[in-house]
Amino acid sequence: MISDDDLKQFFTFLNFPSVSSEPDHKQDVENCFNWLNQEIQKIGFKTERWETQGHPVLFAESKKIPNKPTLLIYNHYDVQPVDPLELWETPPFKATLKDGIVYARGAQDNKGQLFYTFLALKELKEFPINIKWIIEGEEEMGSEGLETLLPKYKEKLKSDYTAIVDCGIPDADTPAVSLGMRGIMTLELELTGTNVDLHAGTHGGIAYNPLRALTEILGNIRDKNGKITIPGFYDSIIPLTDEEKKHISFEFDEKKYEKDFGVKATGGEKDLKPLERNWLRPTLEINGLWGGYQGEGFKTVIPSKAHAKISCRLVKGQDPAQMSALLKDYFEKVVPPGISIKIKTPHGGGPAILSSPHSKIVQAFAKSFSTVFNKPCRYILEGASIPIVSALEKASNSEAVLVGVGLVTDKIHAPNEHFSVDRLYKGKEVIKQAIKNLV
Amino acid sequence: MISDDDLKQFFTFLNFPSVSSEPDHKQDVENCFNWLNQEIQKIGFKTERWETQGHPVLFAESKKIPNKPTLLIYNHYDVQPVDPLELWETPPFKATLKDGIVYARGAQDNKGQLFYTFLALKELKEFPINIKWIIEGEEEMGSEGLETLLPKYKEKLKSDYTAIVDCGIPDADTPAVSLGMRGIMTLELELTGTNVDLHAGTHGGIAYNPLRALTEILGNIRDKNGKITIPGFYDSIIPLTDEEKKHISFEFDEKKYEKDFGVKATGGEKDLKPLERNWLRPTLEINGLWGGYQGEGFKTVIPSKAHAKISCRLVKGQDPAQMSALLKDYFEKVVPPGISIKIKTPHGGGPAILSSPHSKIVQAFAKSFSTVFNKPCRYILEGASIPIVSALEKASNSEAVLVGVGLVTDKIHAPNEHFSVDRLYKGKEVIKQAIKNLV
Repeated sequence: MISDDDLKQFFTFLNFPSVSSEPDHKQDVENCFNWLNQEIQKIGFKTERWETQGHPVLFAESKKIPNKPTLLIYNHYDVQPVDPLELWETPPFKATLKDGIVYARGAQDNKGQLFYTFLALKELKEFPINIKWIIEGEEEMGSEGLETLLPKYKEKLKSDYTAIVDCGIPDADTPAVSLGMRGIMTLELELTGTNVDLHAGTHGGIAYNPLRALTEILGNIRDKNGKITIPGFYDSIIPLTDEEKKHISFEFDEKKYEKDFGVKATGGEKDLKPLERNWLRPTLEINGLWGGYQGEGFKTVIPSKAHAKISCRLVKGQDPAQMSALLKDYFEKVVPPGISIKIKTPHGGGPAILSSPHSKIVQAFAKSFSTVFNKPCRYILEGASIPIVSALEKASNSEAVLVGVGLVTDKIHAPNEHFSVDRLYKGKEVIKQAIKNLV
Repeated sequence: MISDDDLKQFFTFLNFPSVSSEPDHKQDVENCFNWLNQEIQKIGFKTERWETQGHPVLFAESKKIPNKPTLLIYNHYDVQPVDPLELWETPPFKATLKDGIVYARGAQDNKGQLFYTFLALKELKEFPINIKWIIEGEEEMGSEGLETLLPKYKEKLKSDYTAIVDCGIPDADTPAVSLGMRGIMTLELELTGTNVDLHAGTHGGIAYNPLRALTEILGNIRDKNGKITIPGFYDSIIPLTDEEKKHISFEFDEKKYEKDFGVKATGGEKDLKPLERNWLRPTLEINGLWGGYQGEGFKTVIPSKAHAKISCRLVKGQDPAQMSALLKDYFEKVVPPGISIKIKTPHGGGPAILSSPHSKIVQAFAKSFSTVFNKPCRYILEGASIPIVSALEKASNSEAVLVGVGLVTDKIHAPNEHFSVDRLYKGKEVIKQAIKNLV
């Protein structure tokens, strides 16, 4: 049960506009931190405020019990911006309950998942194990602050297990634990032809157009089956063993996908299933591409420059820095005469993480999910990336599991984000029982 | 000789900020028209004002002489905008003479070339042939007004020859007549994947990225030699005969090009010379390309849409409408499953024009160029397009020649546009003698 008082407290939490990326909300983020800090102290945790260049990290610990394992829980108290505001049917920072659904920015991501974790810890009161809890305020802007702090707080963070409570289940009735998620690596390409934009008539046929070069480079990195042909692209992958793979459910409703998004699921390698492509294979996506004239009408130029932003999702075995160097080398090699290339690797990215279905933390959550949903728990993976997870796993020297009761239809990062009271309850129960299972 | 009074009059003309595309300058364009109208009347021409939706066209006629041929001369009195103003070393609308060079917006394009035409006609006084003169005020914004008027004024425009006095010579000492210029045709592509931007992690490997589709489509339209492989692309070309070709000078200084523009001339088909590629072969240039995230940092989306603006320069035999349909069919056929395409053909474009080196108008100008420059006149072509030329040639039922004494280094359309007094004189003499040669 979620009591009216619990809901009231949840709404108070949701109503802080803790938008981390918008400087105007700096004080709101601070107020949210302070409120949360107080509430967590009230349920018996010792808390610390870790300063960053941006928003503070909240670190909480339960009373130490010797000779018992330690579970580190991860959440975040910051939320995404609300634009476009006009598409919200209820105010994003005035949580609204309708037919058992709570509407608000952060209702799911991650305040909802944080709040049922809070309720679980509050209701348990006495813990059979040691609990450490890290709650950052910059997840929606890249977790830079927390990442910088990790080396300094290695001792504090030391744990046996880490639970990232920021993930989801395939549908409302299907329990699942994510064994891992893909890593990420980003690149920016800048191609330059001549030092000024040229008249496309006077120079067409003489100058090499950098937009042509960019389409030729990026349009020729796959074979007919959608496999990337950049030498070495797949070489370092450590594939899942058949034994590991057999635990994972690759069920995917292609018809539902087509209905939800208006197109067939035609991306990726043709000989693999959609979720194999999304979970077990790396990608190279063009996230942005531009050059030349984009306005009304026409300006027949051969532009001086062409740009692309590229990100790769990485799987087990692929090191972000190595992959970045491999792509850099490749692009520099294939650039045609008459065109020069500059490549930036703006972020370090992060590797994929992957847990064994047999590990104690995975088993503890799988068991609790099965009990709460009264159905066998599936193992799934996550195509997206949370770069901080791998760093946190490393800093805490623990094995991580990705859990949560989010749904793809919760509209996180979008207008009318929502979360059901039912899942608030189920999430709370999952956390409570998983903690008991870890003893 | 160009007298001080002539220069003073030229400066008055240049100092009208007749920027056709900027609504703020509407009155300036009008004032420029009125001044020009008056000056042309003073030298004995009967003028007419032809209204358009935008700026007026000036039409002038000399006194009719029966049984003599008619030459139609084309100029324009509007100029390009002046941005970026801070790069001008002298005010763009305060003509400045330095070491025999006149600096001002329009000093060459086209007020300079118009003004030496004016001086030629003024000095000739009595003409051995009939002269018609059409001067538009919208060349720098696409000549829409004039194009609309052409069918209505067919009788008025009827001539034997047309001289487009808006072109150039290879260098200051080399006389040349352009036998033709390429045509043009434009297309806009819009590729759509899903109906919303997608998270590149959650959907990467499942959804087909429209930016990938765009690079694949545009990056695979050429073979290794730079030849376009779109079926039928070259089929309708009527190549120059060897006889025609032998008159044309394809001299091109690749070293100078590299020095001027910072890169080697590597565009176009590998087995042809640069000016063959620029003059005798069609092109397909991407003038603009965009989609996804272009800001600072990263947003790892699979965008909903990808866009391209494409223009083709066309050569003799290629019809803009047919070529447009051919490309539309091709792009619609190669778009991959999961992606839809919309193609716009915003402008009608215009076909290439090409005159015979043996025609009387070409011979008349070639002879006058040779005399004035005291050197054999070369025949060249023009890679750029003036779509109105073909329409004007058709409306006047005449054969056109492209002449002028512009240089690529005159910085037309750019800051510090300039023109030499020496070429003002030579241009004037070329026009005078060509008219005499047409009797």
